[in-house]
Amino acid sequence: MNSPISPSAITSPIPARLVQLRAAMQAQGIDAYIIPSADPHLSEYLPDRWQGRSYFSGFTGSVGTLVVTADFAGLWVDSRYWSAAEAELAPTGIQMMKIASAAATLYIDWLASNVKAGQTVGVDGMVLGLATARALEHALKAKDIRLDTSKDLLLDIWTDRPALPQSPIYEHLPPFAVISRADKLAAVREQMHSKGADWHFVSTVDDLAWIFNLRGSDVSYNPVFVGHALIGLDSISLFVSEGKISADLAARLALDGVQVQAYAQAATALAGLPAGSTLLLDPRRITYGFRQAIPATVTVTEAINPSVFAKSRKTAEEAQFVREAMEQDGAALCEFFSWLETALGKPGLTELTIDEEICAARARQPNFVSPSFNTIAGFNANGAMPHYRATAASHAVIEGDGLLLIDSGGQYLNGTTDITRVVPVGLVSDAQKRDFTLVLKGMINLSQMRFPKGTLSPMLDTVARAPIWAEGVNYGHGTGHGVGYFLNVHEGPQNISTTIADAHMAMEVGMITSNEPGIYRPGKWGVRIENLLLNVPALQTEFGEYLEFETLTLCPIDTRCIQIDLLREDEIKWLNDYHVTVLQCLSARVSGAALAWLQERTVAINK
Amino acid sequence: MNSPISPSAITSPIPARLVQLRAAMQAQGIDAYIIPSADPHLSEYLPDRWQGRSYFSGFTGSVGTLVVTADFAGLWVDSRYWSAAEAELAPTGIQMMKIASAAATLYIDWLASNVKAGQTVGVDGMVLGLATARALEHALKAKDIRLDTSKDLLLDIWTDRPALPQSPIYEHLPPFAVISRADKLAAVREQMHSKGADWHFVSTVDDLAWIFNLRGSDVSYNPVFVGHALIGLDSISLFVSEGKISADLAARLALDGVQVQAYAQAATALAGLPAGSTLLLDPRRITYGFRQAIPATVTVTEAINPSVFAKSRKTAEEAQFVREAMEQDGAALCEFFSWLETALGKPGLTELTIDEEICAARARQPNFVSPSFNTIAGFNANGAMPHYRATAASHAVIEGDGLLLIDSGGQYLNGTTDITRVVPVGLVSDAQKRDFTLVLKGMINLSQMRFPKGTLSPMLDTVARAPIWAEGVNYGHGTGHGVGYFLNVHEGPQNISTTIADAHMAMEVGMITSNEPGIYRPGKWGVRIENLLLNVPALQTEFGEYLEFETLTLCPIDTRCIQIDLLREDEIKWLNDYHVTVLQCLSARVSGAALAWLQERTVAINK
Repeated sequence: MNSPISPSAITSPIPARLVQLRAAMQAQGIDAYIIPSADPHLSEYLPDRWQGRSYFSGFTGSVGTLVVTADFAGLWVDSRYWSAAEAELAPTGIQMMKIASAAATLYIDWLASNVKAGQTVGVDGMVLGLATARALEHALKAKDIRLDTSKDLLLDIWTDRPALPQSPIYEHLPPFAVISRADKLAAVREQMHSKGADWHFVSTVDDLAWIFNLRGSDVSYNPVFVGHALIGLDSISLFVSEGKISADLAARLALDGVQVQAYAQAATALAGLPAGSTLLLDPRRITYGFRQAIPATVTVTEAINPSVFAKSRKTAEEAQFVREAMEQDGAALCEFFSWLETALGKPGLTELTIDEEICAARARQPNFVSPSFNTIAGFNANGAMPHYRATAASHAVIEGDGLLLIDSGGQYLNGTTDITRVVPVGLVSDAQKRDFTLVLKGMINLSQMRFPKGTLSPMLDTVARAPIWAEGVNYGHGTGHGVGYFLNVHEGPQNISTTIADAHMAMEVGMITSNEPGIYRPGKWGVRIENLLLNVPALQTEFGEYLEFETLTLCPIDTRCIQIDLLREDEIKWLNDYHVTVLQCLSARVSGAALAWLQERTVAINK
Repeated sequence: MNSPISPSAITSPIPARLVQLRAAMQAQGIDAYIIPSADPHLSEYLPDRWQGRSYFSGFTGSVGTLVVTADFAGLWVDSRYWSAAEAELAPTGIQMMKIASAAATLYIDWLASNVKAGQTVGVDGMVLGLATARALEHALKAKDIRLDTSKDLLLDIWTDRPALPQSPIYEHLPPFAVISRADKLAAVREQMHSKGADWHFVSTVDDLAWIFNLRGSDVSYNPVFVGHALIGLDSISLFVSEGKISADLAARLALDGVQVQAYAQAATALAGLPAGSTLLLDPRRITYGFRQAIPATVTVTEAINPSVFAKSRKTAEEAQFVREAMEQDGAALCEFFSWLETALGKPGLTELTIDEEICAARARQPNFVSPSFNTIAGFNANGAMPHYRATAASHAVIEGDGLLLIDSGGQYLNGTTDITRVVPVGLVSDAQKRDFTLVLKGMINLSQMRFPKGTLSPMLDTVARAPIWAEGVNYGHGTGHGVGYFLNVHEGPQNISTTIADAHMAMEVGMITSNEPGIYRPGKWGVRIENLLLNVPALQTEFGEYLEFETLTLCPIDTRCIQIDLLREDEIKWLNDYHVTVLQCLSARVSGAALAWLQERTVAINK
């Protein structure tokens, strides 16, 4: 899956809220106010407390930036959300400002051009990423515009603002937690030492979850909790809301030298760092507010969080657990797909039923925790929207002919899954088969790659696109994202995409990455085929160490959608070999109709 | 070809020169002095006058940076030159400082770490790229080290320093000069206008040659001349040494509003720009010294030189001339290779003979001007050095068994060529055939690509490497460089390589790029196969405009070196189709032994 749509849906009168916001701006001497889609942890999924951009704009998509001045209100939003934003903004008077990608910061240019010299732009520094803040600061300074990051104007206006999430934090325990908390802390400290740092501040929720072997449910789908950590050479503070950590767990944490402190104390602790100490922080993973809290007497060393690299490189034991999770997930999918084939053609089957049934099938598996994102079940035209989500108010009935795209995943204590399959409904047209086969070729092409250890992951993107480009077709999302170990379904640092590479994106042993090319025909149908791949050593030669991909995902790829004359012999061989593996790994885990389905859908194909 | 080795060879006593340099440093209060490999035009090939780094280090390679302090002298050099530098530096006491690539600026880190606060680093700002200067300034400032860019210490010490090059400048005339000077100037001015600039300063020699339809021979191989230009909306000044432009040519230039001025007046003209005007310049294509000459009352707009894009996109007429140049080049190569096959096995055949014969064959073609770089003819182990050059003092006799790699090219009035072929000598081993076939597969893979217009060129690099990586093999140079139109054999902005991409490297119609994967077995043999590719429109779909490559180079690829079972059917078809085209295009241009050779070497292969 690629990127989620936030579940919240707000219907309250936005214009009245904007009136209140403008009054507060005037009272505080602020001429333009920014409300980003962000929390103090720069998370992908925002807890309700930080859904202020939705509250003041009515736009429910996951990413967008609201800018309000006395006579203007605009929402900067990327192409995924243009149609949704158009509908949601219509009754608000807020203007949609189109941007090419979520990473674009065109609102900064807009502010620099439209706010007058001497005027003030305001934003809550506690929810503004440090890297973004610097770009903003730089652009405004050049135009002699002031930046005030000290005020959270939402506090007084948003009277029913949700509290901090209160879900309990729990331990990720052995055997699934393969590396002990003590060992992870030692590894982080070793990296701090190598960078000459005495202290390290962590705000990002997946880094926290990994470092401390803790999990939570403060947001949907990602098993994380809201908090910060300040790791010193002799002491470790974990800042979380009161009541989230039981006395028992606190005692266990204390055994590893971890002291639980109040969530609100994080900035205070930073402010109290001893003069002359050196603090390691990641400018892309900390907000401006926290950066401002650090005394000038502390030397700040900026580098990517050591845990970003560490958690991306799954150990051999973790990989083994993931293989088991993939078998469970594959077994659940056999049950689901065999049910689906009997349900097709019967009345009442909708995209929503798909979601319910697939989640239920996964929930019957051991160690299942939750879905890893909301199921994307899109029939025909809905499948052409890469981030479609069926809702009670709007969903398709599955009937007639076409393609049904299902992108889903599970969080298990022993791994995180993410898989997309496309199945035929009724008759499949030649054009649909052609698209399916081109996507399959791209997926197989990438699956078969060998490459030097350290290859920048974006350099592999073209391999998946080549057979699709050859026909003048393309897809507007990346080919693959990193996947966590019972953690975020989107995790870095690697990313197989056309995004300009940075040196952090090098491919290393143990990384898990999705492989999900697609073709989308707006208004008609969509195809995406997605497996997860594990980086494994391939060979060592005089030219260095080479990696290859082990396909982790285990589920048949529907051969009824293939136009076989488009496949080369080596591609047919790859697919048949894959189906032999799928059958071998899953047949002991399913029975009855599911086993029969598995056997039928893994039969070899030949030209 | 990839990157040249400078032809100069200096044998004078370096230590004595360093003593003089250190005395000058002390007299001027400079604690560390940098001598870069650069001239005021940031050229790839340096005129002798700016070979100061060679003069003071003894190192004759094309790229390297010398840093001298009171008790240290070091030369920063990339892997291409480690073995050459080791030998050349041995008698000098200068330390070799290894860097991964020519673009690395580790000497800046070294200076920041080794020069003390309060001390002064010196460098001649007139030969220091602006972008490099900024990095240097930033690094030194952080350590409280002064930077003095006002002194060219070489002036007084290097008493027999060569003068400015004096070769005459000549016009590139119709029909080969397809776009008139007036039209090119209008296009540049349109770009200036779109960026709000009244003035544009150009120092780079290939930009000058393109804009003015002028050529020269101030350096080897690239048909360029040393100069600067200041282009205004109403006036144009071209700054070149006196005597280089004839009165006749000056009069013709004047018709297009171009005034010829003295080379030394360029900085003065910049200093005299009217207050309030806006100057467009390219920070990667101007030196710090010229940037410093601009008054503070002038607004500077930084952007890539408009001519960089314009000259990279060959017009349909230019492409047609290049196709003709490729036929001429191919005919010359048929003559050469048919001669070579009769010469093999006879005594006295050396790598030097190859160079002489191939240049002579090209020189017999109409419109030939010069080689486009020095021929790389490397037998067996010498072929394993991607930038090898046979010299009178050191070259191999071609006898026995193995592979002979020949990388060569020509400058014609109607185009620039660059081609690499590998031919068998005696018996070719299975391992050699395997390497040859893997390289061929990579070359064919890239040749067959289709891709969206605007694809960043580095994203195509992996396509050529994939079949080579699959066997745990790699090559240490880029896959392809841009090629000029009767201009530099290395030109930007596109570059098919693993270098982190910038947005300027997008693929557009009309660009010519080399396709030259390789495999190098140090001490044994080398394989590289190189064709030039033209970006042409492939198809237009609902997903946009797609490009493909037209292979321009016309010369058989020796099928005797192929291990055919490694080739897929589509690869064999590509090769056979290519040979049909080669035969069709060249057979009318050759006769006798050359024709017989062409016919024999283009026979189809089959599994």
